[in-house]
Amino acid sequence: MRAEEAILTRRSTRVYSDRPVEQEKLEQVLEAGRYAPSGGNNQTTHFIVIRNQEILAELARLVKQEFSKMEETPGMYKSLAGAIRRSKGEVYVFHYNAPVLILTANRIEYGNNIADCACCLENMMIEANALDLGTCWINQLKWLNENEVITQYLRTIGLTEEERVYGALSVGYAKNGLPDRKALPRTGNPVSWVD
Amino acid sequence: MRAEEAILTRRSTRVYSDRPVEQEKLEQVLEAGRYAPSGGNNQTTHFIVIRNQEILAELARLVKQEFSKMEETPGMYKSLAGAIRRSKGEVYVFHYNAPVLILTANRIEYGNNIADCACCLENMMIEANALDLGTCWINQLKWLNENEVITQYLRTIGLTEEERVYGALSVGYAKNGLPDRKALPRTGNPVSWVD
Repeated sequence: MRAEEAILTRRSTRVYSDRPVEQEKLEQVLEAGRYAPSGGNNQTTHFIVIRNQEILAELARLVKQEFSKMEETPGMYKSLAGAIRRSKGEVYVFHYNAPVLILTANRIEYGNNIADCACCLENMMIEANALDLGTCWINQLKWLNENEVITQYLRTIGLTEEERVYGALSVGYAKNGLPDRKALPRTGNPVSWVD
Repeated sequence: MRAEEAILTRRSTRVYSDRPVEQEKLEQVLEAGRYAPSGGNNQTTHFIVIRNQEILAELARLVKQEFSKMEETPGMYKSLAGAIRRSKGEVYVFHYNAPVLILTANRIEYGNNIADCACCLENMMIEANALDLGTCWINQLKWLNENEVITQYLRTIGLTEEERVYGALSVGYAKNGLPDRKALPRTGNPVSWVD
């Protein structure tokens, strides 16, 4: 798929089929992520690729549990407030039951940690779209990246003491296939020309 | 160009030719940036596209001036320390004299501001590479995004009171053309498999 098409047709996928993601495709997605630029060519983004469904289920349970202890506050970022609200309901699965969840972690003390992880995630979204895989940016583990329960659990699957999670990506085949059209026109993201 | 090729051959360009960037190509790059995902589909990234060479020169002068007032500190992010050091020399042009500089600004109070801007920048880097344009992530205006002198100047070219700059991109034709090979293999950016 052409780069421009892969960029303009990328959309968030929130309903996944059970079809497993081929190893080769997943490796292509990860390679795209690893080739993102980094501040001073630092290359400290750590990709934690979770395919074990029991671990994903346990992580989802813990995320629900920890959000459900929190309360919405005035002026809170609306997506975070929504996560807290939904976590108090019966069912809340933060990763949309995707078969693969890729965490991007980086060093706490590194000034470009969020931006580097975001570039890696964006590359993976574009490459996945080119390979007919659906993705969705997952922010819950970033919002919980100082939470002790979540952090301790993530330490058991590879997160180091120096790292925090700054973003994640659900990956899998969309239940009803990907749309082949350009995403909805942007009404925001304005451009100012300084000529 | 295929998406994968555009991602894997993207490299930073730091020496630009004087050749102007065609309006159509620049609009394609900006469209790619505008189609990046945003937290809760917020779409508040503001692209400020500077092509006026007098304004770019004045901005470069102010950036040099403000960095030269700063001092390196122990443990400082090495790229920032390098900018401060170089700013005290005779010549320091933070945007590598690229013919176009695109600032990505976002709302100060918005929790996903850095990540959203990074996704927009990554999309623009990939699309530019596919169009044979060179780019380089420019972090200096992010490091100075609380500096009063820089902020006041940016207000005169479109930055609003609610916004700060969270990243920027130099864009232009590489003086010696773009390399047509994959970037150097990543030695960092490790992958942990959780199966």
